[in-house]
Amino acid sequence: MGEEVVVFDVWVNPYSRRVETAMRLKGVPYRYIEEDLGNKSPLLLKYNPIHEKVPVLVHNGNPIAESLVILEYIDETRPQGFPILPRDPYERATARFWSKFIDDKCMPAITQACWDEGEASDKAVEEATELLMFLENELKEKRFFGGERIGMVDIAANIVGFWLGTIEEVTGVELMTRDKFPKLSNWSIEFVRSNVIKENLPPREGVISYLRKKRLTR
Amino acid sequence: MGEEVVVFDVWVNPYSRRVETAMRLKGVPYRYIEEDLGNKSPLLLKYNPIHEKVPVLVHNGNPIAESLVILEYIDETRPQGFPILPRDPYERATARFWSKFIDDKCMPAITQACWDEGEASDKAVEEATELLMFLENELKEKRFFGGERIGMVDIAANIVGFWLGTIEEVTGVELMTRDKFPKLSNWSIEFVRSNVIKENLPPREGVISYLRKKRLTR
Repeated sequence: MGEEVVVFDVWVNPYSRRVETAMRLKGVPYRYIEEDLGNKSPLLLKYNPIHEKVPVLVHNGNPIAESLVILEYIDETRPQGFPILPRDPYERATARFWSKFIDDKCMPAITQACWDEGEASDKAVEEATELLMFLENELKEKRFFGGERIGMVDIAANIVGFWLGTIEEVTGVELMTRDKFPKLSNWSIEFVRSNVIKENLPPREGVISYLRKKRLTR
Repeated sequence: MGEEVVVFDVWVNPYSRRVETAMRLKGVPYRYIEEDLGNKSPLLLKYNPIHEKVPVLVHNGNPIAESLVILEYIDETRPQGFPILPRDPYERATARFWSKFIDDKCMPAITQACWDEGEASDKAVEEATELLMFLENELKEKRFFGGERIGMVDIAANIVGFWLGTIEEVTGVELMTRDKFPKLSNWSIEFVRSNVIKENLPPREGVISYLRKKRLTR
């Protein structure tokens, strides 16, 4: 095919994992370049001069940044493969809404709740709990946010399905308890167990050790 | 057709105007409900319980929130009409990237630069200038961000094309000067002059008077 697909990523980064999960779901071979965020490569800065962040997908020389934008691009350029977004326009809008909700609302609240201290943390725990409850309710009786199989919202929610547990373990903050969030808790078990996700997550102990170090240097 | 399209909006809100611009570009008739943000209607709270914000589009009883999500939905449900997103997947990704950039980066920086005071404002002016320069460069030699005609990025950039001038007038902050931003300045003239945009913008004097009141009550 003469196609060149390169992904600039960081192993421990949830946004990075989203892109690689999508590539694997679609069965697209790609070249992986691990970035050192303390010493970003000239290529990363060239391809993502605005945000200077991973992930970046470079397809035949054309760079794309922002993980959710990349997920849509992968889905649109491989329409025959595994459907990342649903086909129905209203379901697509709903998937985009929740993915954006995770990034814009849940991510900052979870980060603050777990990493801040004192009053700021307490307030953020309350906010994050409220936000996670919206996700809990959105699951309804579905196995995944995408229904019977993983979709865009599940991929976007990897921070909740995998990372949150590791952050809780390291910081001691308890956000997603089973009694408060039975559906999200079950979903997160299903999520990390499902094939492509499992193969594509970093080792739990490695993430925990990374987060412990990060905590010490804050 | 038996279709029901309702839009919950606020006349002075740039996000609201995005949705209505898209509806007019597509030639979709809709019922307009003006919201009072000081006293939100039970229907708005029902349809957008998470953000409790305008705009909300309700299509045959199905609510959609978040202006960029709504733009994509309008484009997908009316594929035969005026193309809001480009057809090529890479150009689509680029349009999504810039629209997101405007919301995530430019909007907060512009707001802070214009409405904050003292040091916080100075810092934000610097940041907003840097961000607007990315938009200036992205215009290249194009008439609109969408090329020869308006597209998603132009619609998203209405805050720069129209609102910024009114905010500058009210606050006295100068961000988008012609000498620094010749392309963006020309684009903004073309933007407010183009037919559907012109018909869909609130009256300039009305916005200025609204902003003056808002400034007094801050």
